[in-house]
Amino acid sequence: MSEGTDFTTTGVSRFPDRDLGVKRFRCEVGVPLAEQKELGHNRWHPDIPPLVEVGLGEELILECGGYDDYQLQDDDDPRDIQNFDLFRTHPLTGPVRVDGVKPGDLLVVDILDVQPLSGIGYSNILPGMGGPLASWFPEGFKTVWDLHGTSATSRQIPGVAIPAISHPGITGVAPSHDLLRVWNEREDPLIADGLAAPRLDAKDASVLRTLEGEEWERVAATAARTIPPRENGGNMDIKNLSRGSRVFFPVFVEGALFSAGDFHFAEGDGEVTWNAIEMDGVGWFRFSVIKDGMARYGVRTPMFRPSPFDPDFGTRYISFTGLSAAGGEQKYLDTTMAAVQAIEQAIEYLGKFGYTPEQAYTIISVAPCEMHVGGIVDIPNAAVVLKVPLDIFDKDILPRNV
Amino acid sequence: MSEGTDFTTTGVSRFPDRDLGVKRFRCEVGVPLAEQKELGHNRWHPDIPPLVEVGLGEELILECGGYDDYQLQDDDDPRDIQNFDLFRTHPLTGPVRVDGVKPGDLLVVDILDVQPLSGIGYSNILPGMGGPLASWFPEGFKTVWDLHGTSATSRQIPGVAIPAISHPGITGVAPSHDLLRVWNEREDPLIADGLAAPRLDAKDASVLRTLEGEEWERVAATAARTIPPRENGGNMDIKNLSRGSRVFFPVFVEGALFSAGDFHFAEGDGEVTWNAIEMDGVGWFRFSVIKDGMARYGVRTPMFRPSPFDPDFGTRYISFTGLSAAGGEQKYLDTTMAAVQAIEQAIEYLGKFGYTPEQAYTIISVAPCEMHVGGIVDIPNAAVVLKVPLDIFDKDILPRNV
Amino acid sequence: MSEGTDFTTTGVSRFPDRDLGVKRFRCEVGVPLAEQKELGHNRWHPDIPPLVEVGLGEELILECGGYDDYQLQDDDDPRDIQNFDLFRTHPLTGPVRVDGVKPGDLLVVDILDVQPLSGIGYSNILPGMGGPLASWFPEGFKTVWDLHGTSATSRQIPGVAIPAISHPGITGVAPSHDLLRVWNEREDPLIADGLAAPRLDAKDASVLRTLEGEEWERVAATAARTIPPRENGGNMDIKNLSRGSRVFFPVFVEGALFSAGDFHFAEGDGEVTWNAIEMDGVGWFRFSVIKDGMARYGVRTPMFRPSPFDPDFGTRYISFTGLSAAGGEQKYLDTTMAAVQAIEQAIEYLGKFGYTPEQAYTIISVAPCEMHVGGIVDIPNAAVVLKVPLDIFDKDILPRNV
Amino acid sequence: MSEGTDFTTTGVSRFPDRDLGVKRFRCEVGVPLAEQKELGHNRWHPDIPPLVEVGLGEELILECGGYDDYQLQDDDDPRDIQNFDLFRTHPLTGPVRVDGVKPGDLLVVDILDVQPLSGIGYSNILPGMGGPLASWFPEGFKTVWDLHGTSATSRQIPGVAIPAISHPGITGVAPSHDLLRVWNEREDPLIADGLAAPRLDAKDASVLRTLEGEEWERVAATAARTIPPRENGGNMDIKNLSRGSRVFFPVFVEGALFSAGDFHFAEGDGEVTWNAIEMDGVGWFRFSVIKDGMARYGVRTPMFRPSPFDPDFGTRYISFTGLSAAGGEQKYLDTTMAAVQAIEQAIEYLGKFGYTPEQAYTIISVAPCEMHVGGIVDIPNAAVVLKVPLDIFDKDILPRNV
Repeated sequence: MSEGTDFTTTGVSRFPDRDLGVKRFRCEVGVPLAEQKELGHNRWHPDIPPLVEVGLGEELILECGGYDDYQLQDDDDPRDIQNFDLFRTHPLTGPVRVDGVKPGDLLVVDILDVQPLSGIGYSNILPGMGGPLASWFPEGFKTVWDLHGTSATSRQIPGVAIPAISHPGITGVAPSHDLLRVWNEREDPLIADGLAAPRLDAKDASVLRTLEGEEWERVAATAARTIPPRENGGNMDIKNLSRGSRVFFPVFVEGALFSAGDFHFAEGDGEVTWNAIEMDGVGWFRFSVIKDGMARYGVRTPMFRPSPFDPDFGTRYISFTGLSAAGGEQKYLDTTMAAVQAIEQAIEYLGKFGYTPEQAYTIISVAPCEMHVGGIVDIPNAAVVLKVPLDIFDKDILPRNV
Repeated sequence: MSEGTDFTTTGVSRFPDRDLGVKRFRCEVGVPLAEQKELGHNRWHPDIPPLVEVGLGEELILECGGYDDYQLQDDDDPRDIQNFDLFRTHPLTGPVRVDGVKPGDLLVVDILDVQPLSGIGYSNILPGMGGPLASWFPEGFKTVWDLHGTSATSRQIPGVAIPAISHPGITGVAPSHDLLRVWNEREDPLIADGLAAPRLDAKDASVLRTLEGEEWERVAATAARTIPPRENGGNMDIKNLSRGSRVFFPVFVEGALFSAGDFHFAEGDGEVTWNAIEMDGVGWFRFSVIKDGMARYGVRTPMFRPSPFDPDFGTRYISFTGLSAAGGEQKYLDTTMAAVQAIEQAIEYLGKFGYTPEQAYTIISVAPCEMHVGGIVDIPNAAVVLKVPLDIFDKDILPRNV
Repeated sequence: MSEGTDFTTTGVSRFPDRDLGVKRFRCEVGVPLAEQKELGHNRWHPDIPPLVEVGLGEELILECGGYDDYQLQDDDDPRDIQNFDLFRTHPLTGPVRVDGVKPGDLLVVDILDVQPLSGIGYSNILPGMGGPLASWFPEGFKTVWDLHGTSATSRQIPGVAIPAISHPGITGVAPSHDLLRVWNEREDPLIADGLAAPRLDAKDASVLRTLEGEEWERVAATAARTIPPRENGGNMDIKNLSRGSRVFFPVFVEGALFSAGDFHFAEGDGEVTWNAIEMDGVGWFRFSVIKDGMARYGVRTPMFRPSPFDPDFGTRYISFTGLSAAGGEQKYLDTTMAAVQAIEQAIEYLGKFGYTPEQAYTIISVAPCEMHVGGIVDIPNAAVVLKVPLDIFDKDILPRNV
Repeated sequence: MSEGTDFTTTGVSRFPDRDLGVKRFRCEVGVPLAEQKELGHNRWHPDIPPLVEVGLGEELILECGGYDDYQLQDDDDPRDIQNFDLFRTHPLTGPVRVDGVKPGDLLVVDILDVQPLSGIGYSNILPGMGGPLASWFPEGFKTVWDLHGTSATSRQIPGVAIPAISHPGITGVAPSHDLLRVWNEREDPLIADGLAAPRLDAKDASVLRTLEGEEWERVAATAARTIPPRENGGNMDIKNLSRGSRVFFPVFVEGALFSAGDFHFAEGDGEVTWNAIEMDGVGWFRFSVIKDGMARYGVRTPMFRPSPFDPDFGTRYISFTGLSAAGGEQKYLDTTMAAVQAIEQAIEYLGKFGYTPEQAYTIISVAPCEMHVGGIVDIPNAAVVLKVPLDIFDKDILPRNV
């Protein structure tokens, strides 16, 4: 039985880069970005020095640590999520300066591939940051995923296999100084109210590639946090920006200054717990341009074309509906409330099949669920449809007569 | 060339009902519901007398006038939309009492087919009722559609063909008296503020099937308007409740009392102008039950399974993104604002290909566009993705270098 | 319960042709083509006089009796299939002369809709004409289908619902005299050997629209049977020439002379029993042209683009393989044998779930099964893959451990 | 621009195997199987000693050289295809003995992932082995592919990008001694006629893992070539046995003895030139069992369920038809001829867009084209439909008026 043969039990596959001459930037697995800061950054600012310059039509392979910057541990100990330092999110690899791309252009990014790096995934309900139902779970809930090629399983949620729809949660370009000022002005009041993440902290967690000293201080003072998506893309958390899709970014600075990170093995629309199946990962990108595309096509926010490789569930969904009214509560065309109602309905339903609320909420956040705006005009009730794929479960979850 | 042969130039196809013995309820084309009120109703109330009783497993074919109750005319004169009487929306055919179905059950409705009745469609931006961008179009905008089998075209929007994803905008069951009371209590404050449609009007437009006199007055006083979707389903306006789908309704009264209407030839997620391609139509339904399904499965709002016949666009979409921030404006996780921003971005983009804002807004409302909740956790910005199918246009609308 | 209301229990829906001015040619239900021969023909010949002339861009609605020319009866009596007169197949409606279309062009036909006419379907294993396994069933086997909107059920095959993928089995254009001569020359030897259907019979079953007397005799003598598909299209029996698809025909005569018939509610690749769910039906067609398309694009046989409305089963198939070898039998790259082997494997498999060979063979022929050429190069074995959709069965037919 | 940073320009991604403890068997890139013969074999025989034993539910990662056994070179020199030694095809990795699996069971293999190994692909029209049109290309034709993540491009066929539908061309189990005898008996007459590949050659190319000397001679004498697919699976060359699919194999020997190889980056139905985009690759497999499945389900040949990750082209195909008649040539229900006719039609069509016959034939063989059996009952003409995806081309290949 092959005794004596020296076969290792772990190993590497390869991106098919032989003879393609594609430059690859490596992330040291397990090492926080601050200790390998030549690789990237975790704030948005136009003055972060580029990592690399590429020409039009060129490709790059970018590795990146997960959104947690290697704070999470593959164990069942909740201390990592209890002590999670949000200021260290999200390490990004870049910026990539694309030669010949100017403000007003559209940067075209083909996402040629996305794969796991170390091969482990995390999805967490972080205490206090766990999305609209965070208050249900004051302790939070940690899930560790084993990534088996095209599917992920977890000891915390038995009986579920999540198919890959791998994507970078964050792809974006640098804002101009003017745009950055607009961001800060409009967000500062919410930061003051605790409704948006503050820019600076005592621990100086901002990593701005190789900037140090006064230059670091100058840039860090106004650099934008990576948490919200904005006109530059950023933390779009769109599950369909996956391997095989094409993205068009408005360009605000010379060379566009593209960065990527926050890789997800899979995610549902809305990423409702604030966590997908998060992973360190690697993306393969090709860069081109639509000259003057912003004005020619009236583009202010990113556009994209979907991937032909996204998992196809056909009709194998059960769809839940949520409204901006429930029991005695009534809001006016509040789509967020409708979404939350649909999520609560789905959690209650999945509970009948043995899933705890923590498990069900996590499933909805990480499986390729779809959440559609069902109606924003039928006053006073907005409606949202939440589609949960049936085939991720190892049992039949359709309603049946006994 | 067949001269002299007496072939008519219009005609009928048939639902395949020979030998199936399926009962069919006919709508007199062009006749307002008030004049054929034995057919149905336009308010929700448990005391509206049933139109018909069916057993479990039985099928019915229900015809119904469009949401406009035959107010709209196939011409280019805008007076019909200017003088539109909203109190006459929506004529519904029913209620159908399903034998053996009790409160607490789930009524299972298979939508076996949906077809146009008279073969003409309307989509309108009604002055004042035209969705979130109504203020852009104070005059409104009227579009008349020719329904050619599986596709619709319009003289008002040349160069566009909309594929059928035909469905009843409204399918629902009767509320219990208790549930109706909850609805009225939670909606009354909004009605008082003009944020929801009032129940009664001077013209006594409520049609409650054969009820008359005091009984009509008693029921009409508390019967709910059909405009918002609610726990009973109703005006869900979900484009995927289409021919071939299966819907599960919570049941609040004996026999469920199912009704349908507001047929759409096609619609986009959100029905953003408040109009799909509206049509008089005919639906073929089969009824069954999941006993005690509400408690057994924790169901409070309708669920459904999608149809295998919905048009498949594969990857042929261009997707726009919208956020709850734009320029200097900033809201906190406001998904409705994000949806509106995505719509505005799409209107601006389509404008570069020659579509007026009225046309583009209408296209987004009536074509099988998808609108996904992209993120409701990345504080402070909610994100929405609006996917517009490419192949409804007779030209290429992808961005290109000149 | 609506007592006294005069609702009929059968009825008609309509193609949406109001105001479209689309000409419709009606088939008298139940009447053989010979008795309404102004409607069409059942042989191919360039000299059959046109039924109608249309311009480019025009639409037509064509009704047609089923392939059986109303020989089949909705009962359980097998005498209709025992005494089946093959010479009366297939009634076709047409020819349509398309103005401005010339030999060498490509006629473009958009199939805008296909619907049942009388609403009943038949699928038969005809004694002696039942496809490659006919010898298994010397008595034949008759199945009658009830067409419920988008799905068909049959009392002869309980537990199965077949989704609509409705299409004309036959769409084609007239051959030129030269092409007709080629056909006859190449087929005559097979006719002599009993391997192709003879042209003429004692009963003079050829219907050639209004031709009579000597002219009938002249044309009937060389007119081609409709059974095989040929360069003109004809009996292509391609399930995907369905509502929503576009077909490109090479044109051999002035005006193309298009005809259609042999409507199917649904069919599997290969139509292996020689019967789909056969029905009288109605098709809605639009005609346009690619000038000089035969030479410009090198087209000798019809091409098409598939429909977006075909039922989508996603991954819900079980796929069987067949080879050109089985047990001790061995053929050299014989794809037909491989197809038959895959069919036999599927029949055996379905037998384990309670389906008789007659039922299983019929299911494979009429459900939207796919049959792929898996390999025609791996000498000596050709391979074929037969994909059977899982969701047509009311039970789970996947293999499981007990 | 990151000068001085030590980033390598090639690199590796990883299967996510950290902490999964999945055993991986490595292929030494560039080294013929005969020199690393502990890895596998290139003939089928029940007495080849197993490479490894796994339990039910276990996973394995198997690397394997391409079908060419590293004979092909990444250059434009045709000598490698002129001197190609067919006896060295196909190196397989295995056999894997699955504990607890017995003859009569079904071995269930989940294909969890498939990736390139060295990242280069080859597709060749080998002189004399190039499929049904080999005689058109006496010199053969060599194509080298660069594998960019999810798509492949080639300097020999510019303007085409082939999406990944990666799969092992060969997955199979060992035959029993009895079954092997049946194979040899039925194939020997064809071998004698040159219609099947001979078993033995002068150069002793059979690799049977570690067997040597007399034992090698005994086994090699009757071991079956890997070229044809057979009841054990083997060279099925089914493009849909791809990452995410599940295969059920009949089991003929204790432990099943599963092997895999002949990895393809992409392939069309039929693999018509006898070459896909061939690559050295790596597959990730999980093994389970259906006890007594062969008798319980009547299974004689492999079955499978398709993958949700296969590229989705929606309606974006142009479909060609081929018949078993063409011009004056006529065969009786010859599906192979119909397939070849469809291929010839497609080659002629693609020629109008600038592709040479060599290029077009290769495209049809390696792109995810579908080839459906269109009809095997409409005597005397079989029909085949060949669907070519539109979006692999960088120009529009639909027919248009000029």
